Amino acid sequence: MPLQSIYWKDGKIVIIDQTKLPKKLVYKTLETVDDVAEAIISMRVRGAPLIGVTAALGLALVAYKYRHDRGERILSELHKAAEILRKTRPTAVNLFNAIDRVLEVAEKSLDPAKAAIEYAVEMMRKDIEINKRMAEVGQSIIEDGDVILTHCNTGSLATVSIGTALGVIIMAHRLGKKIKVYATETRPKLQGARLTAFELVREGVDAYLIPDTAVAHTMKTKGITKVLLGADRILRDGTLYNKIGTFQIAILAREMGIEFYTVAPTSTFDLKSSRADVEIEERSPKEVIYVSECQIAPKTIKIFNPAFDETPPEYITGIVTEYEVLYPPFEESINRLFNRIEKEG
Amino acid sequence: MPLQSIYWKDGKIVIIDQTKLPKKLVYKTLETVDDVAEAIISMRVRGAPLIGVTAALGLALVAYKYRHDRGERILSELHKAAEILRKTRPTAVNLFNAIDRVLEVAEKSLDPAKAAIEYAVEMMRKDIEINKRMAEVGQSIIEDGDVILTHCNTGSLATVSIGTALGVIIMAHRLGKKIKVYATETRPKLQGARLTAFELVREGVDAYLIPDTAVAHTMKTKGITKVLLGADRILRDGTLYNKIGTFQIAILAREMGIEFYTVAPTSTFDLKSSRADVEIEERSPKEVIYVSECQIAPKTIKIFNPAFDETPPEYITGIVTEYEVLYPPFEESINRLFNRIEKEG
Repeated sequence: MPLQSIYWKDGKIVIIDQTKLPKKLVYKTLETVDDVAEAIISMRVRGAPLIGVTAALGLALVAYKYRHDRGERILSELHKAAEILRKTRPTAVNLFNAIDRVLEVAEKSLDPAKAAIEYAVEMMRKDIEINKRMAEVGQSIIEDGDVILTHCNTGSLATVSIGTALGVIIMAHRLGKKIKVYATETRPKLQGARLTAFELVREGVDAYLIPDTAVAHTMKTKGITKVLLGADRILRDGTLYNKIGTFQIAILAREMGIEFYTVAPTSTFDLKSSRADVEIEERSPKEVIYVSECQIAPKTIKIFNPAFDETPPEYITGIVTEYEVLYPPFEESINRLFNRIEKEG
Repeated sequence: MPLQSIYWKDGKIVIIDQTKLPKKLVYKTLETVDDVAEAIISMRVRGAPLIGVTAALGLALVAYKYRHDRGERILSELHKAAEILRKTRPTAVNLFNAIDRVLEVAEKSLDPAKAAIEYAVEMMRKDIEINKRMAEVGQSIIEDGDVILTHCNTGSLATVSIGTALGVIIMAHRLGKKIKVYATETRPKLQGARLTAFELVREGVDAYLIPDTAVAHTMKTKGITKVLLGADRILRDGTLYNKIGTFQIAILAREMGIEFYTVAPTSTFDLKSSRADVEIEERSPKEVIYVSECQIAPKTIKIFNPAFDETPPEYITGIVTEYEVLYPPFEESINRLFNRIEKEG
């Protein structure tokens, strides 16, 4: 069974506390919107799709608390909670999309609490289904003999379950495809070392962990055929915002003639914003100066710690979604897909 | 005063134990060739030039111990010690060059112990002088307003004192040039975070530490103008072997039109070997799974941990030596320099 990273249980949220991995698999209960905000900020939950679902369930917590109140009060509390949650992390668009949709559904309903809770729980359920479809769609790009490089964590722990890029990889392994995987550590938060390595070992995939410095050397000497990684936001022209390190991996892949894919549900697309609108989160110097409780740099050195970077579409071979694999020119293929979704409802 | 990383004192070697930095500046005394081998393997001393000097002084220890013996016995003990030291680290050529020269000098002398000790101590003294000359030669490439990216540690702690690439940077700062520096952490051993950051803070340079994942994003958003880093071995065609991560930084620099320099004394050149002859050291999985005593990955994940990589000459703008800055075509400029050195004696 794949891991499930989040549950809704009797008006409370239960999460895997990802900061404790890989040493301990610890569950944590979130009872208030402040608990939820803290969990997102501290990266107890992380990964664009999971952040979206967690924020939606955060609103469900509030709806549950005020479920016996008047509709007006419920909506006002939901809006207050939404403001708190919107401030947690600025780059992944799934957070904002999820909050907007829960509010919209609640506002349109005669029973806003019930509507918000049902919608958030359904979003959690649907995330698993969407990831399953993405993993199936992604099989068209994975062949026997592929040596795949992946970055950050895009597995069950980045979503509700199954995962995006790592979901495609793990399904390929389960289907018996002969693949080998190289996962980057992904400094500073080491999601690759802590989470992806944990998931790969758990699934029995033939996999190696490498330092982030070893990407070019590994591509050149270990026969990497494909890069697969996730997305925190994709613009209408295909510009990709993802974990810091993505941009340089994309440049290296193109230099060496290696295919570069991002795997992302349509909820990760932001068709409204332009590059200038996207804020790239900078996180605390402490994330760089300390690894867990170990100090690795002088406390007085200045730190530049961007959490994401921007990869222009010309470096991207394809975008795997839950509907199809999109290819360049992305402006056209993305537009075509979203028109199709609108038509099909 | 710049730091001095190694001393010869009454027949013993005193080193800064670099594994204890940046938290503590601890000195350690080495009394036997096994102590010296352990210090090199454990990276208590590291950096190609410093490894060379340390190995030479390791032979001096043996010469000192047997100084009252017959010449034949001394030479046989020196050769035994040389075998132990040659096995410590395979990639940096300075190690082999230094051992070869001490043995040669001892063999040619009527008093081999005295000759070996004097030569090794002189090599230590000369390293400081060579680095000073390199730092001066390097000033021709540094201008006001430069934003410099550096990798690993190439300062006083990589040499006896002053340093190679970081020596150029620090001298520019002391001369009042307005520069800004971005230093990479350099996983897995974090020489950038632990050592370069320590040296930059100590010198008061305007400097930032960045994760290895943030190189491309920093180049693009922070106006990096030049990359300066060291070398563990340079072949006669300019092929550069240096700390893992160098190759990818070189690719990224070329992609973004940023000048890429290596700073290396002529003792780092290996005019005899071809690429196929160079062994790229792979180090213990423990270096990746643990950061100090903190475990960051599951113990069961396989690790690929190469210590160095190979950068082809077409990515290199120039090579700063203690004589001059070499430019492409490197086959010609390197050949010309070594002919000049041979003529000048």
